[in-house]
Amino acid sequence: MQERQGLIIVHTGNGKGKTTAALGMGLRAWGQGMRIMVIQFIKGGWKYGELTAIEKLGPNYVIRPMGEGFVKGAAENELPAHQLAAREAFQAAEEEIKSGNWDMVILDEINYAIGMKLVSVEETVRLLEQKPEELHLVLTGRNAAAEIIDRADLVTEMKEIKHPYQAGIKAQKGIEF
Amino acid sequence: MQERQGLIIVHTGNGKGKTTAALGMGLRAWGQGMRIMVIQFIKGGWKYGELTAIEKLGPNYVIRPMGEGFVKGAAENELPAHQLAAREAFQAAEEEIKSGNWDMVILDEINYAIGMKLVSVEETVRLLEQKPEELHLVLTGRNAAAEIIDRADLVTEMKEIKHPYQAGIKAQKGIEF
Repeated sequence: MQERQGLIIVHTGNGKGKTTAALGMGLRAWGQGMRIMVIQFIKGGWKYGELTAIEKLGPNYVIRPMGEGFVKGAAENELPAHQLAAREAFQAAEEEIKSGNWDMVILDEINYAIGMKLVSVEETVRLLEQKPEELHLVLTGRNAAAEIIDRADLVTEMKEIKHPYQAGIKAQKGIEF
Repeated sequence: MQERQGLIIVHTGNGKGKTTAALGMGLRAWGQGMRIMVIQFIKGGWKYGELTAIEKLGPNYVIRPMGEGFVKGAAENELPAHQLAAREAFQAAEEEIKSGNWDMVILDEINYAIGMKLVSVEETVRLLEQKPEELHLVLTGRNAAAEIIDRADLVTEMKEIKHPYQAGIKAQKGIEF
């Protein structure tokens, strides 16, 4: 058995808790003195409460804001804005993963971005293969690709059993945002 | 549609992420300025990283340590120690839920405690019915009782698809503890 090994962790499924559990995992690691970087692949997927909370946790738990200025970029490149944002997020992910600055990198909603063909699954698999040995890498988002699941050490499916929308309850502060 | 309503949320299933997602949900709510109380029903279920992280978040995010001194109590009462600890945790839960001091209360591993007959499902259902209207209540643990799921607004099953133990990888700092 190996003593110290960075894991590839996937949170997938149609239920809630994929990003939230990654965030909680980051909080646990942060409590252990680790350094955590979050890259968001889908703009606006993260909510005010999370961003504020993580800002308060200081320099060891960071969200790298992606896609800033991408509208201008999109016009220049004639690429759909969301494709360019995903491309920028992927480049940021590569950079941060290889930087050695982090003990855990969370690629939030990358599975969804792969499913939408905004990110290539082959490139992602290559990135997984190149990750530093001790780095924990967390990939969230529904419909995780089989190629990603094959290479993961820990995969959890968050499955929706019941959702308050079904009962006509509005999105609640602190829960949905 | 009601504007502000406290939800009953259940994280169940055999996979990882039930407690971690509750913790992340607490972090999101904390970022929104809410006050969060965590009661742990199974001693030792929470790990060093989580406890340290939450201690750093200050007075609005608190874990109430349960079962302190319960060994002495168990001897006096001739009750198995774990039953007494669960009883104390349940009393603490009632107290904190009714106190009005919190916007979110997390009853960690209560489903497991109910499954082990350490906590009564009838009492828990009564507690759900008595909760303040605006309080968010989160119940974690595998094998959630049908009576609890019936009364919940949001239920997610965390399902294990793949676990690193299967590949002979040891528990990793920041992930498992």
